[in-house]
Amino acid sequence: MAIERHGTTQRYSDICAYGNSIYLVETPQTLDANVATQTREVLAGVEKLLEQAGSDKSRLLMVTIYLRDISDAIAVNAVWDRWVPRGTAPARICIEAKLTHHDFLLEVAVIAAR
Amino acid sequence: MAIERHGTTQRYSDICAYGNSIYLVETPQTLDANVATQTREVLAGVEKLLEQAGSDKSRLLMVTIYLRDISDAIAVNAVWDRWVPRGTAPARICIEAKLTHHDFLLEVAVIAAR
Amino acid sequence: MAIERHGTTQRYSDICAYGNSIYLVETPQTLDANVATQTREVLAGVEKLLEQAGSDKSRLLMVTIYLRDISDAIAVNAVWDRWVPRGTAPARICIEAKLTHHDFLLEVAVIAAR
Repeated sequence: MAIERHGTTQRYSDICAYGNSIYLVETPQTLDANVATQTREVLAGVEKLLEQAGSDKSRLLMVTIYLRDISDAIAVNAVWDRWVPRGTAPARICIEAKLTHHDFLLEVAVIAAR
Repeated sequence: MAIERHGTTQRYSDICAYGNSIYLVETPQTLDANVATQTREVLAGVEKLLEQAGSDKSRLLMVTIYLRDISDAIAVNAVWDRWVPRGTAPARICIEAKLTHHDFLLEVAVIAAR
Repeated sequence: MAIERHGTTQRYSDICAYGNSIYLVETPQTLDANVATQTREVLAGVEKLLEQAGSDKSRLLMVTIYLRDISDAIAVNAVWDRWVPRGTAPARICIEAKLTHHDFLLEVAVIAAR
């Protein structure tokens, strides 16, 4: 069975789909934005990537949220809670971690269903 | 194919099952307990959630253990090693990470087979 | 459906395969080596484990790289970029995290397709 990839560079793909499973990592685009804006950007990016792979944000299975500063969790959750379609929230964990790009306030890793 | 969820709030589900795959995150219940007690609680919770989804602790595939203090790994492993059915241990990684709730000494993310 | 495991101890398996999905965690072998050497060792180990499970490094779906020191990302990426077959890179995230063994400069968690 073939792996479907989008946004593939030598280092990473934006998204890989295999059978009924989808794997993606999303990062912010506006490096000097605050955490609410970066979160909105990341979740909009997740949504767009899921659509590219024939899925949508109501089909998340497991999400890992990496925050540069764990105290941003409140602001991230405020955006997240409005973004997730009612009754479809995934298994989710949120941790603090240093990320590769200093201006990223968050990164999100997603496993979703096709 | 439908996603089966349990314990769904606006923010997260306790567990999502899709086809033959199961995804869950478990947290401690007794916030002032020591790490051995919190680990026993978390693993008992994992077991209960797996049973809700028609699986059990002998069918773990990949487990990520997040510890507030990596030096707790010894105590966590002592509980873990007694809990895993012989010959069924999953791929496993254990890292230190700040968690969203200061009183959580660990959180566990699990991928399992139905 | 049975889970196929290799390198199973009481604590972990080196790799678990289930249906068309593969889960593994790999660690360095030479504890006093520099990060480039440890990265080469880890990726060679990933390759060997994937072959044991009937897959190969062109079938990665999602990779999480945990670094003891995030500033090692440059050295890790230099090795990674040469290792990944062109056009097959997975979804990938790289974070800093304290690991259970102080001499590990990195650990890698992999989800791959059979």
